[in-house]
Amino acid sequence: MAKKITIKEIADACGVSPATVSRVINHNPMVKSNTVKLVEDTMIALGKPINSGSGIDDEDRLVIILNIPDFDNMFYQQIISGAYTSANAHKCDILVNQSPLDKASMPSFLHLIKKINASGVILLNHISVDSLNRIHNIVPVVQCSEYNDEANLPFVSINNYASAKNATKHLLSVGRNKLAFINGPLNYKYSVERRRGFVDAMNEAGLSVPLKWMIQLPKIDYDMAYTAVTQLMDDRIIPNGFFCVSDTLAAAVTRAVSAQRLKVPDDVAVVGFDNLQLSTVTRPSLSTISQPSHQLGYTACEMVFDIINSGESTSRIFLGTELIVRESTTIQKKRI
Amino acid sequence: MAKKITIKEIADACGVSPATVSRVINHNPMVKSNTVKLVEDTMIALGKPINSGSGIDDEDRLVIILNIPDFDNMFYQQIISGAYTSANAHKCDILVNQSPLDKASMPSFLHLIKKINASGVILLNHISVDSLNRIHNIVPVVQCSEYNDEANLPFVSINNYASAKNATKHLLSVGRNKLAFINGPLNYKYSVERRRGFVDAMNEAGLSVPLKWMIQLPKIDYDMAYTAVTQLMDDRIIPNGFFCVSDTLAAAVTRAVSAQRLKVPDDVAVVGFDNLQLSTVTRPSLSTISQPSHQLGYTACEMVFDIINSGESTSRIFLGTELIVRESTTIQKKRI
Repeated sequence: MAKKITIKEIADACGVSPATVSRVINHNPMVKSNTVKLVEDTMIALGKPINSGSGIDDEDRLVIILNIPDFDNMFYQQIISGAYTSANAHKCDILVNQSPLDKASMPSFLHLIKKINASGVILLNHISVDSLNRIHNIVPVVQCSEYNDEANLPFVSINNYASAKNATKHLLSVGRNKLAFINGPLNYKYSVERRRGFVDAMNEAGLSVPLKWMIQLPKIDYDMAYTAVTQLMDDRIIPNGFFCVSDTLAAAVTRAVSAQRLKVPDDVAVVGFDNLQLSTVTRPSLSTISQPSHQLGYTACEMVFDIINSGESTSRIFLGTELIVRESTTIQKKRI
Repeated sequence: MAKKITIKEIADACGVSPATVSRVINHNPMVKSNTVKLVEDTMIALGKPINSGSGIDDEDRLVIILNIPDFDNMFYQQIISGAYTSANAHKCDILVNQSPLDKASMPSFLHLIKKINASGVILLNHISVDSLNRIHNIVPVVQCSEYNDEANLPFVSINNYASAKNATKHLLSVGRNKLAFINGPLNYKYSVERRRGFVDAMNEAGLSVPLKWMIQLPKIDYDMAYTAVTQLMDDRIIPNGFFCVSDTLAAAVTRAVSAQRLKVPDDVAVVGFDNLQLSTVTRPSLSTISQPSHQLGYTACEMVFDIINSGESTSRIFLGTELIVRESTTIQKKRI
């Protein structure tokens, strides 16, 4: 049997990217016809049969690293699932890496990219411009959900500010005027932007929020939220509405409120974020902001392939969100 | 600056595994003193300073692949988390790969292991002896949760049969006599064993189960379980208890039962499996079998390091489970 020729060798021989060679092998109609001819001629010259049937050989599969802050947050699952949908279509492997990607862990992450010969990185962490550029110097990188717009690098995300404002206005529209806010750690863009959206919506309605009702948690954690809300509900004056940056936190609020013999939504209305499956499982079900999580992961992975294929990209894509009203804000008798 | 010498080069030079060299560098007390001397002498001969302070260099970090069937099942998150706890302590990288590892995907998985130069594999899929041996021929492999005991390869799991029997007996003990069973796909060992446990407990109690109450789902999916239970509850004779192989399915049962204006647990008692956070979030909260999920992942990863370090291993470890009784089986008035 003749020695197998890899896609990389063909790509090097004709001066195009490995992804372009893959596309030619897979008869992708997006490749220009003179490029197809160049690649096919090179393959014949190198003795590699064209259209051997199975498309990309196993040894030619690209590997993309998907970096996430943690596996606990169910929101990431749907993003991972979306990225896999794209990667499977491209016959590419995705490997998921959990790391905070802080200053301490960045050197080993850069080594990991090189060690496993990754072809691209999808990032769900919020990292510095310098760190982003260090990754970008090795492989194409696309930021997903979280993004640092000071870097001149591509990302796909949502408008966190407008979505939070929308959620807050919904609570105000069902007669709630004493709102509390439960947020995640402020080293993420989403938490800074959603807090800004909440505060602006309240200011525009001429309402203020006591500082102790602006709850900052060190992570998106059910038990932490439960404890924080239980403490809050011990006070003389309590909120009649909660906006939470995650359905996980909103589920904890409904549980903590019920434990105080108060009713959701009549006494306390609750809005979450993400539209996790959890939001339909809890009773009452949770009103929430639906994120296009699967689409975020899918788009990020497609963007990586686009960069591999076409070179530079600085696309900045915002996908839409939607307010979904369920039982936790469906109030029978309005209270003022 | 002198060229850096890698752990692998030192290991090759003294004929031990890279993990042994790592342990010597990290002053692990488990390494025999003559091995320590051999490694340290070799390091000096190669010009590598001993105890440079930071322990394992980034370029020497090992990579372990953790293969899971899918990211949707929340049970896997806790296993991943446990594996990371072990890997972080060993300054090793874990990369999570989602793949069914069937006949079609096995060749590309084997190539992936080689391509990224992985040092070990943790498997959460149930695969054939032949496939297991093909992985084992490349790197150390440890089966976690799922296992094929026809292969002479190490695993860590639980006793699924006894745990299911325990759950079923609990339902019988609270006066339930018409039990239904909701199972996952039968290509997993857990589903075969839990079904056997359920059936044996029912037989021992002299009770039979209509075939249509033995529900087999193609995956652990909330919506599928909801639909299946809703159909079942339309019949003239309905179950008064459900044993589900996952809390996700049990949550769907409680919701579907409530939608029929029946009460959990008084009309229908429910027991789940896994003790996911979900089981305390739903109302009523779910009785369940608690698996040591974090410990399963941690132990599997430690077993990989043990094999890397000491050579062959055929350890078979079973960790304990526990019945946790919550609202979904706490019946006020017993019915017969």
